[in-house]
Amino acid sequence: MSNKKNLTVCLTPDIFCNYNISDDSIIVVVDLLRATTVISTAFHYGIKEIMPVSDLLQAKEYLNKDNYIVAAERDALPMEGFEYGNSPFQYMNDDISGKTLVLTTTNGTKAINCAQDYHVITSCFINLNVVSDFLIHSSRDIVILCSGWKGLFNLEDSVFAGCLSEKLILSNKYQTNCDSVLASRILYNQAQGNLFDFLSDSAHRRRLKSLNIEKDTEFCLDPSIKSDIIPTLVNGKLVRD
Amino acid sequence: MSNKKNLTVCLTPDIFCNYNISDDSIIVVVDLLRATTVISTAFHYGIKEIMPVSDLLQAKEYLNKDNYIVAAERDALPMEGFEYGNSPFQYMNDDISGKTLVLTTTNGTKAINCAQDYHVITSCFINLNVVSDFLIHSSRDIVILCSGWKGLFNLEDSVFAGCLSEKLILSNKYQTNCDSVLASRILYNQAQGNLFDFLSDSAHRRRLKSLNIEKDTEFCLDPSIKSDIIPTLVNGKLVRD
Repeated sequence: MSNKKNLTVCLTPDIFCNYNISDDSIIVVVDLLRATTVISTAFHYGIKEIMPVSDLLQAKEYLNKDNYIVAAERDALPMEGFEYGNSPFQYMNDDISGKTLVLTTTNGTKAINCAQDYHVITSCFINLNVVSDFLIHSSRDIVILCSGWKGLFNLEDSVFAGCLSEKLILSNKYQTNCDSVLASRILYNQAQGNLFDFLSDSAHRRRLKSLNIEKDTEFCLDPSIKSDIIPTLVNGKLVRD
Repeated sequence: MSNKKNLTVCLTPDIFCNYNISDDSIIVVVDLLRATTVISTAFHYGIKEIMPVSDLLQAKEYLNKDNYIVAAERDALPMEGFEYGNSPFQYMNDDISGKTLVLTTTNGTKAINCAQDYHVITSCFINLNVVSDFLIHSSRDIVILCSGWKGLFNLEDSVFAGCLSEKLILSNKYQTNCDSVLASRILYNQAQGNLFDFLSDSAHRRRLKSLNIEKDTEFCLDPSIKSDIIPTLVNGKLVRD
């Protein structure tokens, strides 16, 4: 019998319930463009905790409360009435330090909430190294959960899943019986070295291009900051691990 | 404005309902290992029509009826009490000529039934050329619907979707805004020329290997027959187009 733990990639939250997931699995949520990159950026700049909420009404309850900042995005656009959106650059300021961020986005916060019965962490290129080291030493089954786009597969989260899968499989601590791991590794290996160009035809890159937020995309794919923080869901809030 | 029609790949029937599909779209169902290969083989050997049914009880109603043959498969195994299973070789005989095949399989028949409100055809390597020619001349939006495995992504259907997508995109009649098209084309281009080896680590190949049905897999990936028949769903039955 192999002592290796199981690695699974789930390409969209809408099929998460189709997997047999062991109770002590770690679920790594990825929404590379841009929610999980925003989450790592906000922690890096001192946010205390992050509440992922699925709907706008729930987010609105926290508007104008002391020590809360509230961010909302739908269809890649910031929502009227909210000070913060889904651009990582908005979080690079001292105002956020020590506060609670209430965050609702099109896909990322839904993915986090759909996995909430498990040990949930979030990842992106900012904390890739610390997350992969943590997972390699965890001796637990892992599901990398891609947030996708409105219930559909997307390329950027899958490529990131392939990148993280590659590290885990090469550590020799993980095995897989999951075709999505094989596919995402192939996609990552094709993309490697030129992720920005590789994703240029992807649906979300085109969406962001048309909104002139190429700078966000560049940051998410090749961030200028690195972080050792592993955002971890505890009682419905993401906290530093 | 481009006159090109839209090409979409849906990686598993469980997210089919998340797509905005135009009413006159053609849905191409793929269950390469083995249901859609069985369907093309049966038509090639003279079956009159095929009724895809989702559950075993419904299939049992047709047992011992004149001019019907009934086939059932679950988890890659033929089911007790049914004469036929999901191996294409079983259908290479004159007994099936002119009869109706009632077919229930783990994934393929469910995919066909979930798309039944649209114009549904089935494809595999046996009828790839005639199907791609038909689609290129159809001037209709297309969704290639991968049957997957129990609601999950699988590699073989995605690679086939990539192969068919490649032909459609290169015809210059189709455009896509679908990341699954991009991904499946990359997978196909990696697999091209050595599909059997490429799929050797895939979950279903391993399942079939352990059941010693490698001969079926070889046939499905590189069939010794070609067919000009496009199985088309009409009133709940697949007929020759």
